[in-house]
Amino acid sequence: MEKGTGSLPAPPKPPLRTPPLPLKLRFKREEAKGTWSRDRAPTEPSLRAYELKTAADGSRSASTVPRPPRGGAAAAGAPWVAAPERDGTEGAVMGRTLVELFYDVVSPYSWLGFEVLCRYQHIWNIDLRFRPAFLGGIMQATGNKPPAMLPKRAEYLLKDIKRMAKYYQVPVHISGDDFKRVLGTGTLGAMRFITAIDMTQPQYVESLSREFWLRFWSQREDISQTANILAAARQAGLSSELAQKTLEMISSPAVKNRLKETTEEAIKYGAFGMPAVVAHFNGEPHLFFGSDRLELLGSIIGEKWLGPVPSPKM
Amino acid sequence: MEKGTGSLPAPPKPPLRTPPLPLKLRFKREEAKGTWSRDRAPTEPSLRAYELKTAADGSRSASTVPRPPRGGAAAAGAPWVAAPERDGTEGAVMGRTLVELFYDVVSPYSWLGFEVLCRYQHIWNIDLRFRPAFLGGIMQATGNKPPAMLPKRAEYLLKDIKRMAKYYQVPVHISGDDFKRVLGTGTLGAMRFITAIDMTQPQYVESLSREFWLRFWSQREDISQTANILAAARQAGLSSELAQKTLEMISSPAVKNRLKETTEEAIKYGAFGMPAVVAHFNGEPHLFFGSDRLELLGSIIGEKWLGPVPSPKM
Repeated sequence: MEKGTGSLPAPPKPPLRTPPLPLKLRFKREEAKGTWSRDRAPTEPSLRAYELKTAADGSRSASTVPRPPRGGAAAAGAPWVAAPERDGTEGAVMGRTLVELFYDVVSPYSWLGFEVLCRYQHIWNIDLRFRPAFLGGIMQATGNKPPAMLPKRAEYLLKDIKRMAKYYQVPVHISGDDFKRVLGTGTLGAMRFITAIDMTQPQYVESLSREFWLRFWSQREDISQTANILAAARQAGLSSELAQKTLEMISSPAVKNRLKETTEEAIKYGAFGMPAVVAHFNGEPHLFFGSDRLELLGSIIGEKWLGPVPSPKM
Repeated sequence: MEKGTGSLPAPPKPPLRTPPLPLKLRFKREEAKGTWSRDRAPTEPSLRAYELKTAADGSRSASTVPRPPRGGAAAAGAPWVAAPERDGTEGAVMGRTLVELFYDVVSPYSWLGFEVLCRYQHIWNIDLRFRPAFLGGIMQATGNKPPAMLPKRAEYLLKDIKRMAKYYQVPVHISGDDFKRVLGTGTLGAMRFITAIDMTQPQYVESLSREFWLRFWSQREDISQTANILAAARQAGLSSELAQKTLEMISSPAVKNRLKETTEEAIKYGAFGMPAVVAHFNGEPHLFFGSDRLELLGSIIGEKWLGPVPSPKM
């Protein structure tokens, strides 16, 4: 693999706002349920511009599964390119790294990965792209089974998720009956709703996804109910009109296909569960499975891991 | 749970040697196979003293599965006690934390966890106790299956282990046919050999375990062969006489039972795979599964994660 093959010089990253972006998650451990702030982080102009552009030129609704835009997008002025190969020195990766996060709000570990990546997108030289997908489809296609089906693992996961959520400062509230609750609740509607927003108003994807997680994993709300989907949309900042319009879209072939394609794309990248983080460097996509490989990812792209709750750059 | 219930005041930790202990692992990435140093870290007098004492009083060969010695061992002068409950301030855990590592040299992730804990035992306020066990027994008892049996996961694990090994600076050399090789090689003999040494000359457990991993996971040697077990023993510093004597022990009921008991103990703690790290704090054992939960463990016991290759304290 030649150094820098196929990559264009990286345009400068847009400057961070001053004063530094506030951390999005202000969950106070001691205050627990209900006090976690829903404050949304400002959207990143670069990423949003790309998403809107893609939606506008229709390439994302093509029937073939779109590859992540590297050369093409860069040529078209998209701000990220694949990071060139490391030159052997620690920390010496040039260019911005596209990091795609494939997730389903049914997955609590995906929430952890989502929040940490949302924090690091303002610190690391990465462009984060949200890829709402359908975990059920991934499990079916790969033959994977929910990890909690093994009783001893279920016992452990309960503890692990609690401890990780506390350490990551993400208000997952989980108890023993949650695995059953989760298996009995479909998130297909919610994921189609997020997908529809991703296709039309992608600036809401982050806040909307967070809102679904809050309702499903913090407040134990049944997010398969239409009323709750609409309430989540409004809480995420959508107007009633937009929420209603989006709801009408979720049974359309365009939205269904887009969710299916994104799921298929995750599988092509090697995903067998979620979260699936796909980082593009050395001219290739690299899969990192789980919410616990971000330190490893950082080490490879030359970025420093500052723990799950890093302070934004000054 | 009351603060500090059942714990004795922690005796001072023996001072670290000056100059600081050399890092055990001097693997130079660029020099790859064969150049990784087998240098052993100095043994920790406190831990060794405990191990020898246990072996001497015979408690470990009791037919019931022994609980980890907390009150009893502390009363008998063992240097570690369960860490009392946190007082709410970050980093404020008093006392030393006993950390047990259950492992089998068949598991490459166990090797990663082993090396990182060997490094942190000189940095964190912990006492590390090696618990050689048998992964096959854990899998059978819990109904767990080797993760690589799912083809997509096997593909991923190959990449993940390679990347993690590089980042952790542990010379695992893995390729596509290794999963088959591993399933076809029994480590029961090796684990019985390590168990026998743990019962008689525990100061060799660390170097011997490392030697088996090096042979099995770095040099692809068949460690089920008696000749290779003896060669590993000699490389780990055992005299020919001790190696031969230990070999004769491995078919004895005492050794077989001890390995079985350790394995059962891991299962009682909730293990369903390896490595299984069991840390004792707040008067209870807490299971951490995998080599990727040590940052989380540190955060709970008030110790700072410094990455997988930390510098020892000055």
